[in-house]
Amino acid sequence: MADLLFRRLALIGVGLIGSSIARLCRLRDDITSEIVATARTAATRKTIARLGLADRVCDTPAETVAGADCVFLCTPVGTYGDIAAAIAPALARDAILTDVGSTKQSVIRDVGPLLPEGVHFVPGHPIAGTEQSGPESGFAELFQGRYAILTPTPGTDELAVERVAEFWRRAGSTVEIMEPAHHDRVMAIVSHLPHLIAFTICGTADDLQHQSMRDVLRFAASGFRDFTRIAASDPVMWRDVFLNNREALLEMTQRFIEDMTAMARAVRWGEAEYIVDKIERGRRIRRNLIAIRQA
Amino acid sequence: MADLLFRRLALIGVGLIGSSIARLCRLRDDITSEIVATARTAATRKTIARLGLADRVCDTPAETVAGADCVFLCTPVGTYGDIAAAIAPALARDAILTDVGSTKQSVIRDVGPLLPEGVHFVPGHPIAGTEQSGPESGFAELFQGRYAILTPTPGTDELAVERVAEFWRRAGSTVEIMEPAHHDRVMAIVSHLPHLIAFTICGTADDLQHQSMRDVLRFAASGFRDFTRIAASDPVMWRDVFLNNREALLEMTQRFIEDMTAMARAVRWGEAEYIVDKIERGRRIRRNLIAIRQA
Repeated sequence: MADLLFRRLALIGVGLIGSSIARLCRLRDDITSEIVATARTAATRKTIARLGLADRVCDTPAETVAGADCVFLCTPVGTYGDIAAAIAPALARDAILTDVGSTKQSVIRDVGPLLPEGVHFVPGHPIAGTEQSGPESGFAELFQGRYAILTPTPGTDELAVERVAEFWRRAGSTVEIMEPAHHDRVMAIVSHLPHLIAFTICGTADDLQHQSMRDVLRFAASGFRDFTRIAASDPVMWRDVFLNNREALLEMTQRFIEDMTAMARAVRWGEAEYIVDKIERGRRIRRNLIAIRQA
Repeated sequence: MADLLFRRLALIGVGLIGSSIARLCRLRDDITSEIVATARTAATRKTIARLGLADRVCDTPAETVAGADCVFLCTPVGTYGDIAAAIAPALARDAILTDVGSTKQSVIRDVGPLLPEGVHFVPGHPIAGTEQSGPESGFAELFQGRYAILTPTPGTDELAVERVAEFWRRAGSTVEIMEPAHHDRVMAIVSHLPHLIAFTICGTADDLQHQSMRDVLRFAASGFRDFTRIAASDPVMWRDVFLNNREALLEMTQRFIEDMTAMARAVRWGEAEYIVDKIERGRRIRRNLIAIRQA
């Protein structure tokens, strides 16, 4: 039997990501010998027990982390501050606290200052997901072939970072260490802005009169559909992401609105060359994506 | 053998759509007994001949339409005016002229006035396509299970409309008759605006410094990727679509920019309820798409 990474792994939040971590830990015999989990609602806690995703299901985060040598925060990032305050007194000395949130500077800001001496905080973000949510939507293979980004602050215990990195490697992911600010900027353009656009364009379409909306749905295959898959994602999770990566998201949104306005102006004034140049640029980026097999 | 729809079908432009029509006509024995085709460049005309997509390949549109009882315009919509002027003297009396362009008011404006008495003009738009282009990218099944929209003007010969409708039914499509202005408005929101956004966001990302762009490509799976598939589409075709559906596209783009600006404002000021409401709306539209099996 391979060396166990953790003796007891605590999961706070068991949605798509949390339940995928639980399933992965069940599937492999080299991650942990015990899973303790909690969720905000009694209904979800019942589902966790029914699905056998944990050895023990606790009512509160503090009970859940007691005696755990690794704690995974898997709730919407807006809840992290309150949870950190609640678990801080219960965290074991030398425990590792990590998370899976889509924003990293906010997590360091909200969680870092509340942790007691001796707890190792390793902020993380698996670049994996589907538009599904909830404990039933997870699967052990979710992280396979994907990236997992870690954004430890200077001075973090290297052994702790390495153990979290090893967890993600065993999950099948490629681990990247990154500056938190760089992470937030890159995610703002590759993920947060596209989601903001997807949610927004659905509303723009919905504002059209009834007959148009009916036809929008019928003819969605023409391009609109590509934008709606990610619009099916969890509202609370995305609200928290938007509000907790505010600066980078607003910068990217502002750049995008300027670029859209310039494109609209080119359409209005018939500036054919400008338009073709932008389209060619889009095609080049698409080709680059295909070349590195991300498409 | 089923009744032939056309004796001689002329194809002007043999890209994704034109070559799919040619392949469909080859596959079925109830559409036409002869295909005559042309393309702008000698290279494409050679490819058409090599692929056996036509019985005869002509150098000019006028030669191509001579003696044809049905003519399909399958070039970028910006070329229609010049082509209509060139073929008008050569069109047979009682010939049907139809097209596959993504804008319909512009086609009626550019082509209609140039046609001689006795030619039946039936503007059309198959809602089908891929991000591929060129004569090698077509396939006979492209139109199966899709919509084909016809936008005949009042007074058009009903038999001519019915023959074009029957062509699309034999191609496997569901035929819809629609007002040209309504078509252009619906396509502006379901197709033209999403493409404009896709091309634009690729440029927005490309403007970021080198390191960020590298990471955009690596982490594109987080949402960005969904936006880039349609950004691989043909530049000239899309330039022409944007410029020939200017008013409806600018209206939808303006609405969208307003909505994006309102979303950005809500993010800036932490208006959580506003954001959740917009996200919920996006999810509802996605559910509607799934319910009518367009997703």
